[in-house]
Amino acid sequence: MPVPRPMTRDALLSAFAGESMAHMRYLIFAEIAEKEGFPNVARLFRAIAYAEFVHARNHYNNLRDLKTDIHVFSGTPVGPGNTSKNLELAIMGEVYEITEMYPAYIEIAKFQNEKGAEQSFTWAYKAEQIHAELYKEAKSYVDQGKDWPLKGKVWICPVCGHTYVGDEPPEKCPVCGVSKDKYIGF
Amino acid sequence: MPVPRPMTRDALLSAFAGESMAHMRYLIFAEIAEKEGFPNVARLFRAIAYAEFVHARNHYNNLRDLKTDIHVFSGTPVGPGNTSKNLELAIMGEVYEITEMYPAYIEIAKFQNEKGAEQSFTWAYKAEQIHAELYKEAKSYVDQGKDWPLKGKVWICPVCGHTYVGDEPPEKCPVCGVSKDKYIGF
Ligand SMILES: [Fe+2]
Ligand SMILES: [Fe+2]
Ligand SMILES: [Fe+2]
Ligand SMILES: [Fe+2]
Ligand SMILES: [Fe+2]
Ligand SMILES: [Fe+2]
Repeated sequence: MPVPRPMTRDALLSAFAGESMAHMRYLIFAEIAEKEGFPNVARLFRAIAYAEFVHARNHYNNLRDLKTDIHVFSGTPVGPGNTSKNLELAIMGEVYEITEMYPAYIEIAKFQNEKGAEQSFTWAYKAEQIHAELYKEAKSYVDQGKDWPLKGKVWICPVCGHTYVGDEPPEKCPVCGVSKDKYIGF
Repeated sequence: MPVPRPMTRDALLSAFAGESMAHMRYLIFAEIAEKEGFPNVARLFRAIAYAEFVHARNHYNNLRDLKTDIHVFSGTPVGPGNTSKNLELAIMGEVYEITEMYPAYIEIAKFQNEKGAEQSFTWAYKAEQIHAELYKEAKSYVDQGKDWPLKGKVWICPVCGHTYVGDEPPEKCPVCGVSKDKYIGF
């Protein structure tokens, strides 16, 4: 497979870096949520960290240029805080991805006819919308001093990162079509 | 705690991004090593991925500016490959960190009298030297079609990321002094 065209390649690199940092932040935030007595928020952070791993892996697999440096812009704020602040940062990161980053990256990939990158960006874009909503819901509880009331599990599609809360995962992934038994529960 | 001075802050941000991407790559590489029949190499990748998590968390905890964007240069190559190629990329990344990145960042932090950043960079610098050696050793086996002969476990210090191979972890961490029972085994 040829190297993606430069604009798409830079978008993939930046998105790989952004997903890697999102994954990392959510692992850090999960430890803090656990210490602060929000075990379900910790599970949500760990589950979504895994979804970001899936996105990063998909972006990575569309790159072919082994020797390029990475030069990255990311719109996400950083710096430690408590779980309420961490959820705020998480929401800001997800909202940045769904309002700025992925819509622009999807257009670049479409315009350059880079099908693999377009699919990888689109899958991430769809999952981030669910992440933003789940984090907003969790924050509304944490801000009242309560844990997020998780019924069932947080299910992640290992192919596209689709994220679903419930007793069982969907029959098949509504985004990529993978079967129910492949989902990973947190 | 005040925001670190701008040059140190940018070094922390870039190092946070670099560690997050190293962590991510090693998780991706672990899956591939497992599929290719190198379970001990997979364990090595997972253990070192955890050490990079510790480094990223330490860098993150030295940042205080919640609203800054991240602008990052990283010298690490990217792109999928088999386990031999992945180990080569891992070695290149670790060697970049110990010959270029951390020595320069430690000097910046010292010069600006940013003690927290200096410690965080120094701890990472020490662990990366061990990582580079372990990856070189693993590659010498994989290039003969053999798995890395792991005796005991790969032990990671959860405070500084110190990495040690053996039946038991050291009595206390030679880098940060934490006690033996805190080490995490992979
Ligand atoms: Fe994502
Ligand atoms: Fe997300
Ligand atoms: Fe899916
Ligand atoms: Fe590291
Ligand atoms: Fe390392
Ligand atoms: Fe240590």
